[in-house]
Amino acid sequence: MTDYKTNLRLRLPTTCIILEVILIILFATLVQYDEHTDAKHWHENMEKHNESNYENEFYFRYPSFQDVHVMIFIGFGFLMTFLQRYGFSSVGFNFLIAAFSLQWATLMQGFFHGMHGGKIHIGVESMINADFCTGSVLISFGAVLGKTSPVQLLLMAVFEVTLFAINEFILLTALGARDAGGSMTIHTFGAYFGLVVARVLYRPQLSKSQHKNCSVYHSDLFAMIGTIYLWMFWPSFNSAITEHGDDQHRTAMNTYYSLAACTLATYAFSSLVSHDGKLDMVHIQNAALAGGVAVGTAGEMMLTPFGSMIVGFLAGTISTLGFKYLSPILESKLHIQDTCGVHNLHGMPGVLGAIVGAITAALATEEVYGEGMKDVFPDVSSGEITASFQGVRQAISLAVTLGIALLGGLIVGFILKLPIYGAPPDTICFEDSLYWEVPGEEGTHEEMTTVQVEDVEKPING
Amino acid sequence: MTDYKTNLRLRLPTTCIILEVILIILFATLVQYDEHTDAKHWHENMEKHNESNYENEFYFRYPSFQDVHVMIFIGFGFLMTFLQRYGFSSVGFNFLIAAFSLQWATLMQGFFHGMHGGKIHIGVESMINADFCTGSVLISFGAVLGKTSPVQLLLMAVFEVTLFAINEFILLTALGARDAGGSMTIHTFGAYFGLVVARVLYRPQLSKSQHKNCSVYHSDLFAMIGTIYLWMFWPSFNSAITEHGDDQHRTAMNTYYSLAACTLATYAFSSLVSHDGKLDMVHIQNAALAGGVAVGTAGEMMLTPFGSMIVGFLAGTISTLGFKYLSPILESKLHIQDTCGVHNLHGMPGVLGAIVGAITAALATEEVYGEGMKDVFPDVSSGEITASFQGVRQAISLAVTLGIALLGGLIVGFILKLPIYGAPPDTICFEDSLYWEVPGEEGTHEEMTTVQVEDVEKPING
Amino acid sequence: MTDYKTNLRLRLPTTCIILEVILIILFATLVQYDEHTDAKHWHENMEKHNESNYENEFYFRYPSFQDVHVMIFIGFGFLMTFLQRYGFSSVGFNFLIAAFSLQWATLMQGFFHGMHGGKIHIGVESMINADFCTGSVLISFGAVLGKTSPVQLLLMAVFEVTLFAINEFILLTALGARDAGGSMTIHTFGAYFGLVVARVLYRPQLSKSQHKNCSVYHSDLFAMIGTIYLWMFWPSFNSAITEHGDDQHRTAMNTYYSLAACTLATYAFSSLVSHDGKLDMVHIQNAALAGGVAVGTAGEMMLTPFGSMIVGFLAGTISTLGFKYLSPILESKLHIQDTCGVHNLHGMPGVLGAIVGAITAALATEEVYGEGMKDVFPDVSSGEITASFQGVRQAISLAVTLGIALLGGLIVGFILKLPIYGAPPDTICFEDSLYWEVPGEEGTHEEMTTVQVEDVEKPING
Repeated sequence: MTDYKTNLRLRLPTTCIILEVILIILFATLVQYDEHTDAKHWHENMEKHNESNYENEFYFRYPSFQDVHVMIFIGFGFLMTFLQRYGFSSVGFNFLIAAFSLQWATLMQGFFHGMHGGKIHIGVESMINADFCTGSVLISFGAVLGKTSPVQLLLMAVFEVTLFAINEFILLTALGARDAGGSMTIHTFGAYFGLVVARVLYRPQLSKSQHKNCSVYHSDLFAMIGTIYLWMFWPSFNSAITEHGDDQHRTAMNTYYSLAACTLATYAFSSLVSHDGKLDMVHIQNAALAGGVAVGTAGEMMLTPFGSMIVGFLAGTISTLGFKYLSPILESKLHIQDTCGVHNLHGMPGVLGAIVGAITAALATEEVYGEGMKDVFPDVSSGEITASFQGVRQAISLAVTLGIALLGGLIVGFILKLPIYGAPPDTICFEDSLYWEVPGEEGTHEEMTTVQVEDVEKPING
Repeated sequence: MTDYKTNLRLRLPTTCIILEVILIILFATLVQYDEHTDAKHWHENMEKHNESNYENEFYFRYPSFQDVHVMIFIGFGFLMTFLQRYGFSSVGFNFLIAAFSLQWATLMQGFFHGMHGGKIHIGVESMINADFCTGSVLISFGAVLGKTSPVQLLLMAVFEVTLFAINEFILLTALGARDAGGSMTIHTFGAYFGLVVARVLYRPQLSKSQHKNCSVYHSDLFAMIGTIYLWMFWPSFNSAITEHGDDQHRTAMNTYYSLAACTLATYAFSSLVSHDGKLDMVHIQNAALAGGVAVGTAGEMMLTPFGSMIVGFLAGTISTLGFKYLSPILESKLHIQDTCGVHNLHGMPGVLGAIVGAITAALATEEVYGEGMKDVFPDVSSGEITASFQGVRQAISLAVTLGIALLGGLIVGFILKLPIYGAPPDTICFEDSLYWEVPGEEGTHEEMTTVQVEDVEKPING
Repeated sequence: MTDYKTNLRLRLPTTCIILEVILIILFATLVQYDEHTDAKHWHENMEKHNESNYENEFYFRYPSFQDVHVMIFIGFGFLMTFLQRYGFSSVGFNFLIAAFSLQWATLMQGFFHGMHGGKIHIGVESMINADFCTGSVLISFGAVLGKTSPVQLLLMAVFEVTLFAINEFILLTALGARDAGGSMTIHTFGAYFGLVVARVLYRPQLSKSQHKNCSVYHSDLFAMIGTIYLWMFWPSFNSAITEHGDDQHRTAMNTYYSLAACTLATYAFSSLVSHDGKLDMVHIQNAALAGGVAVGTAGEMMLTPFGSMIVGFLAGTISTLGFKYLSPILESKLHIQDTCGVHNLHGMPGVLGAIVGAITAALATEEVYGEGMKDVFPDVSSGEITASFQGVRQAISLAVTLGIALLGGLIVGFILKLPIYGAPPDTICFEDSLYWEVPGEEGTHEEMTTVQVEDVEKPING
């Protein structure tokens, strides 16, 4: 039943073990507890600065971290279970590549974010950043979902995490852009990188698997678990690494209102564009989230609640229309088979978010921000640059992100095109049984999953 | 296949867009960041009061807010997925009306809770309150589940949020009652409002859809996701807006023990009242939560852990018995078709909670509360009134809540009865396919959900 | 259809009500709010120590508590829904015995952890400890899943919670061992206790139910919800009751990296040991979590990130290999029918965690821990004992835990073997319909679940 070429018995274990051994060696060589996690340094610093244990960064970031963590593993994982026979792979490969990426991202981001005496210092903030970078990889995963092997995905993650860290470094450190919720660094980058990879991996014969590229009733409900979790925790996502105090508070609130407005837009346009006024689950599952993407950059700024709502409404609108009108064109004209429609959820809303961020930054005044200016726009606050120039920085950052994503995706796509990773044939895409032992449906008992029963059937001492 | 009268192609988009545009205009005119979210004011206040960013309200309310948020969107949403063919609508309409209600509630509650120079100030506390108000609407949704169109539900939300805010204002501000977890404001109000609406919308011919008004094996498991999330996070719900310190801590703990005791009562009576000792999922899914409702008022008081357990045990008992013996009577005698049994989960336990709150308040002494009296009963602490009179206030509040809920529900019910909202016919209640594009079951491939496949089948350039 | 012997109509209600009444009486007699939840004492202490409400323990433990709570009710509950026809029982009995155990544990742990003037003082820390103890019972539940009645399970919980509290007291108080995440107290104890109970309850004829002892496609997806929640929140679990500051922060981070490495090991070995390189859901659902178990003791120590990764990698490896090679032997040779494979997920990784903890403790130096030594190893810090001796304490603790678990499990197993609890016959194990009213499958409408419909069919006034 399993084609030799897709048997991963040697390739998947080898890849996982080699990657993990490399990670462990690099961690042993390069990574240390930071001053909030190291027993000795924390206690030295507490004494020196007359602080208490209650001021440990843990208490001000960890709840946000856990919300982000849920988005990465439950949110993305279950959002992609909408396919009828790809639930194991959706949530399972999501799990695998996320578990790898967060380790690799710790190293790559640590390397670019600044070493301390040759060492990478880690704590809850680096954990959030690693999860963010992982999110970008999972966005790209959405574009190639159902058409790739886990070995291919792990390799994509190796490259994408690296390019993500480079792009992030250029934007935040070299260019001095602001992008707390990652409209550019996470969403735009992840989406366009993934779309180019999908383009390079174009399968003209994919229609042979088209009967599996659809949902069933229950799979859509599983996917809604993912959607709702992403929706609920997006305020935590956008605010997870903004400055403490009003910044985190405001970012969370802006995101909350943007998402609420986005949801109404999504329902409105989903019903409007269908031929008989019925709602489409694909829109609800995805476009309702675009409001979170679109305030990823401007959320920490003084966007105002109604400004957030306008942005969210626009994001929901373009995302829903994108699913209806643009995705078919991307497939037929540009040969981009975007399984989850990441262009509509992350691509366009990400670009919108970058533009909104640039405009909002350019309009910043001391009048509005007061002393808070130094948290949101430190260079404007210090008088180094004008607010308008901050806006220019943001715009340049968008262009840089698109450039690195497109070029990076092109190169990585060709690497992933090599016929050595056990990718599924065109006829067996969107199908779990290629890489998973799949139990029968209810009422049939083809395969047993628990060990003791298997034992009864096939005694190992035979 | 779709009857013209239930085609919402114009009505749903129009309703959503008009409502959202009104919201945005009102937000632009009336809503401002509060002093914990506004960059300038927060930094000014920090300097003035020599505070640090760590004292921002965000850190002391946001984790509670997120737990409440999960209850609203996952808890209520999935609790209602128990129906076999109404999962999309349960979680999807829950999503829509919650996203609308939280915006509308921000305005209505802000208006009644006190304006600041003509402006409504918002932050994490207003977000929690908006989610609370939304919860009330979702309770009413439970009573009419499966028999209403989304347009009808949005309209119900417009009115119910308004009435909620008025009732809340009368109770908490005018009457000086305490109701942190909303036994009265949220549960009693939402339940009896919804029950009266359900009464007015009574469908004598609903039996034509009765074969769909039941669960299947998997839908009950989805519903348990909702149940368990509501159960776990109820301590956060009841404590989300109590005073800081011991009050939040005590409220959460009282709720924890009330729910635990309630669960044992539910299992006991579910098994006892069935004809062969088997447990009924309807009871477990719902009655096990009644303990959270019933300590919604008294949870912040010095109810003691064993007092909480007694209340929880009683709540689980009356709720289970209500499902078994009272619901059939409500339907046959009073013509109230209460789909989710909200009378058993929110109605009776809400009234019980109000009574427990009144008694506990009346028994409060300085001996027990010490300096903490000023947080729980400020008017008793200041000597303005006696504890007994606080108890009277609480009792009056219950009567007021019932009055507004019943009268409001009656009026709104008749508004919703107009035959212009695309409500389902009696023969197609409890059915997703009326308002949703529904994919086929596993193995059948009637409909495709992903865009690219649809494109392959129906080329848009034809 | 229901055998009289398994009809629990009297036994289950009686058991639940008697237990709850006893709990309420004991709580009324023995339990008081602690100084962080009692209104009077908290305000007195605030004044005395010049503290603020923001320093209430609630803010530093409650988010961790909620994560642990999710693991207990969603994590364990859904992890066990993998069986095709045992989802109601898995999540439902998990719910019941957890709701009971957390109340009983409050008393037992309070009794052994030290009374205050004859009273047990409770707050968020006791709530976390009660949930921890509950976790241990749920681990044992996993070993006997599908083969026990709820009455049996409640009785098991009564005894196991008691023995847990005794063992915990011996380890943490009498022996002075460290075990914040419970590699020994929770996992090793729960696993071996449950395995011995399963051994005593051995059913030679269980193969008659073997066709139900397997998963179906959707049940595996439900189980993945449990897995992912356990995986995500394990950092909160291990850090929930460590000391404040760097200790909580470091423990969470060590667990995060251990789990990530464990996941890669699990995928590698799952693919390696199958006959055609396919991944096995049983491994992914369980073995990927072993990394959390294995750093339960050493997580709070200066294990280093790469040390955590090595431990996690080892744990994932032995767990996966255990499922493949050891579980069949346990069944065929030792007659231990371990339904969920708790020996692989909790047993062996728990022992590994205890050993890693002993070694890490023995290697502790002032050089590395600085002033932090007094939080992690107070007796070593005070000079009372050497680090090596702390290691010896840890090793002795493992032996004590195994001894109490094995002996306790043996005795309790024989108590549970009495034929009076309504245990399922060999032919109807792993089957919900014995204890639950089960609705039909989709498309069939054998049973109705909502009350009003039932009423229509069987008028109560007939």
